Amino acid sequence: MASSKSALDPLAIGIDIGGTGTKFGIVDHVGNVLFSGSISTKKHPQVETFIDDLYNNVKILIDKAGGTGRMKGIGVGAPNGNFYTGTVEYAPNLPWKGVIPLAKLLEDKFKLNVTLTNDANAAAEGEMIYGAAQGMKDFIMITLGTGVGSGIVANGKLIYGHDGFAGELGHTIVIPDGRMHEGTGKKGSLESYASATGVRLTTLEMLKNTNTPSTLRKIPAEQIDSKKVYEAAIAGDELAKNVYEFTGKILGLALANAVMFSSPEAIILFGGLTKAGELILKPTREHMEANLIKVFQNKVKILVSHLKESDAAILGASALAWEIA
Amino acid sequence: MASSKSALDPLAIGIDIGGTGTKFGIVDHVGNVLFSGSISTKKHPQVETFIDDLYNNVKILIDKAGGTGRMKGIGVGAPNGNFYTGTVEYAPNLPWKGVIPLAKLLEDKFKLNVTLTNDANAAAEGEMIYGAAQGMKDFIMITLGTGVGSGIVANGKLIYGHDGFAGELGHTIVIPDGRMHEGTGKKGSLESYASATGVRLTTLEMLKNTNTPSTLRKIPAEQIDSKKVYEAAIAGDELAKNVYEFTGKILGLALANAVMFSSPEAIILFGGLTKAGELILKPTREHMEANLIKVFQNKVKILVSHLKESDAAILGASALAWEIA
Repeated sequence: MASSKSALDPLAIGIDIGGTGTKFGIVDHVGNVLFSGSISTKKHPQVETFIDDLYNNVKILIDKAGGTGRMKGIGVGAPNGNFYTGTVEYAPNLPWKGVIPLAKLLEDKFKLNVTLTNDANAAAEGEMIYGAAQGMKDFIMITLGTGVGSGIVANGKLIYGHDGFAGELGHTIVIPDGRMHEGTGKKGSLESYASATGVRLTTLEMLKNTNTPSTLRKIPAEQIDSKKVYEAAIAGDELAKNVYEFTGKILGLALANAVMFSSPEAIILFGGLTKAGELILKPTREHMEANLIKVFQNKVKILVSHLKESDAAILGASALAWEIA
Repeated sequence: MASSKSALDPLAIGIDIGGTGTKFGIVDHVGNVLFSGSISTKKHPQVETFIDDLYNNVKILIDKAGGTGRMKGIGVGAPNGNFYTGTVEYAPNLPWKGVIPLAKLLEDKFKLNVTLTNDANAAAEGEMIYGAAQGMKDFIMITLGTGVGSGIVANGKLIYGHDGFAGELGHTIVIPDGRMHEGTGKKGSLESYASATGVRLTTLEMLKNTNTPSTLRKIPAEQIDSKKVYEAAIAGDELAKNVYEFTGKILGLALANAVMFSSPEAIILFGGLTKAGELILKPTREHMEANLIKVFQNKVKILVSHLKESDAAILGASALAWEIA
């Protein structure tokens, strides 16, 4: 009877919508991705055909996993996803323009509860339910990828703000009148430095403005990306290491400000930039501590997410489904 | 019978502990301060005699107001007050050193529930229960006095963070490598600019570094304070107006960063600096908007607290008592 009960334990569906592709999976309560798959997002200029395609593919997994009755609900992570309204609003990287009532469309199709939020908030939920933030009531999740996203948890709940858009740490201004962010037109935001794009731009600036010898000088500027900088840095390249030192200095300052705002137990980092390990973590930690007033010093853990990168987006999205009352 | 029920409505006791004096009052559910008084803080080098003195004075008001049985509880605002532990920790401006179990001492004496937090968090509670933030679930309170304090409310609850010390917006770094803060040793914090001390220092810098004519040039440097700058500015003094423009620019940038963090419905300002009205509010609003990404623009209200300054500290502290379960 125990195994029969266990076979009936509820499962959650996680759907992560990206500009190119959409990943989905069926997840148990401890974060095992039991079944997963993906479809193209960008081949669907109409959201209706996207929903049909998604339904047909996810339904196969639902049936394999015991049917709709076993599903607790669907969690969706999507760029510009609004938790309160269940809509995706003016997402520049998705094929559908304007305000898309995505949660409603999915609920009508799947006949299941749907909760939607943006990718970084979903990542924070994933860490809280399955990952490094289990048991924490106050933490900040920061995703360091092409851009910088964040999800802030206080009193055990994600902060969505009055309109559902809270947690845009990547757009806070760290260096007034600093580097221009092409996407927003604002100067000196965290994202303009502590992202893959930011690392590339810092490298180009250092190559131009310093005489530090570097193997990167042999590579044409347009081919330099954060991956090449990373490879040079772990091979011991001085300039590449300086790039991480500089990036960590700015990230550390931003983290200090975030700590003095919500005083989290930990900051959890996820994404490409964290692959550089101590090259980026050491200066980040040092500059965070240096900018904190005493009452906050030597208290806040900087952790790197240990969720498998291939599963993390599905896990994050699925975590939302467990939160449904 | 209706009036007899009304006479038995519960009341809250608010106690605001400052370095010089301690104010207290008995408050009804809509924010009327029915009885109030004050004692000296600094004449009590021992916390025990302070508690005795406070009890003797508050007890008179309790008896006037219908006795202990009618009191819902006691709320206390104190510098470095920790909500979780009920202690005051290493408060530089109080006569008692180290960690003081203030809530416990008061509970033992008064036989009432005691809730304690720092002054800025108490001010936020006051606005939520009686003031400009009634009905709001997401807002930020900022006190602009000798220093800069803040209380952040999200999902209808104050953010205390994992250790009880969240909400130190005044110490976030706005201008990296900017003005030195004498108290903390950190450079470029909001408090080093957007406080009474900051306004004085900005004025001295502008008098030294510019040739702008100003009536303030007739006053010896050591006598220039934020009040004199305010008086000059409303009399039309160009340099004094520039001081507010500059202060508002930095405050606006800090507010933009706070908005992108927790996306509040409103930011509520309180304290001496707000007396300058549009002189400070206009540049603050403009620079906040200029630093926000589009999704946050033209949404967030900047409000000035309308609680009477003489009552605000007692009201804020008393508001904590209503929050007790």
